Amino acid sequence: MSASASPAPSSPFGARVSIEQVEEGDELAPKFDAQGLIPCVTTDHASGEVLMVAVMNREALARTIETGEAHYWSRSRQQLWHKGATSGLVQKVAEMRIDDDQDCVWLRVEIAGGASCHVGYRSCFYRRVPVGAERGQDTRLAFTENQKVFDPKAVYGDAPNPTQL
Amino acid sequence: MSASASPAPSSPFGARVSIEQVEEGDELAPKFDAQGLIPCVTTDHASGEVLMVAVMNREALARTIETGEAHYWSRSRQQLWHKGATSGLVQKVAEMRIDDDQDCVWLRVEIAGGASCHVGYRSCFYRRVPVGAERGQDTRLAFTENQKVFDPKAVYGDAPNPTQL
Repeated sequence: MSASASPAPSSPFGARVSIEQVEEGDELAPKFDAQGLIPCVTTDHASGEVLMVAVMNREALARTIETGEAHYWSRSRQQLWHKGATSGLVQKVAEMRIDDDQDCVWLRVEIAGGASCHVGYRSCFYRRVPVGAERGQDTRLAFTENQKVFDPKAVYGDAPNPTQL
Repeated sequence: MSASASPAPSSPFGARVSIEQVEEGDELAPKFDAQGLIPCVTTDHASGEVLMVAVMNREALARTIETGEAHYWSRSRQQLWHKGATSGLVQKVAEMRIDDDQDCVWLRVEIAGGASCHVGYRSCFYRRVPVGAERGQDTRLAFTENQKVFDPKAVYGDAPNPTQL
């Protein structure tokens, strides 16, 4: 390479050099796992409801930061996933947070269309598990949403269901 | 074995037999990954704030359901982790949810002592990442909590810090 070649684009993320820097510093230095992924929790910015939990790779995290719209890594499709590109249910980021050891992201979002779940519900977490004293003899899951916000068949057509057994 | 031997204790969780059963049914049939773990998001039941993201193994999930207090699997210590056993910051489960494909748990908890994070903050997510238009020229993380709820040194003493670089 000649001396005039453009420098390689630098990483938008800081290096992880010490526990104090990672936990107490003001530099974003996220930890990606062996697969190059970081988990992300996404909540409704107004209600606080957990909508979904997904993963991001470096590109998805960088694009989310740059555009203010949630991007994830689709493990079922093995590609960058701009949430809402198919369904129209784009997630606009009201706030992004990073956790203590910077190995998890929290997005607080506004959701276009009022739904986030591929099954058609507002949240992916539409069933309650009875615990402790409330459990009694009835251990069945209880639905927390009475009806779907959209018809998945109409939105996704015959695209493969991402759920794996 | 004689015919009168006690049967082996059955799993408290259902088998995963179809996508419809997993997504639309009322039976808890969680998916544990290759390491036998399922991620868990824990939020403050009143404020909706995400406090932490951790993992559970089968035993941790079963004990959380049985006792109504959050149990996780500690990857750094490789043992069952009854949250609060060391710090006193027990998490009482107000509600447990499971997601569409049953590979993620959401706990809404009440926290004794008002803190959940080993660094001493209320939430592990005590730093905000500027995104999109708000990013401007200042890309530094902004602290969302002004002071720690407790002194980690006083609570944990010289126990090893779980953060990994």
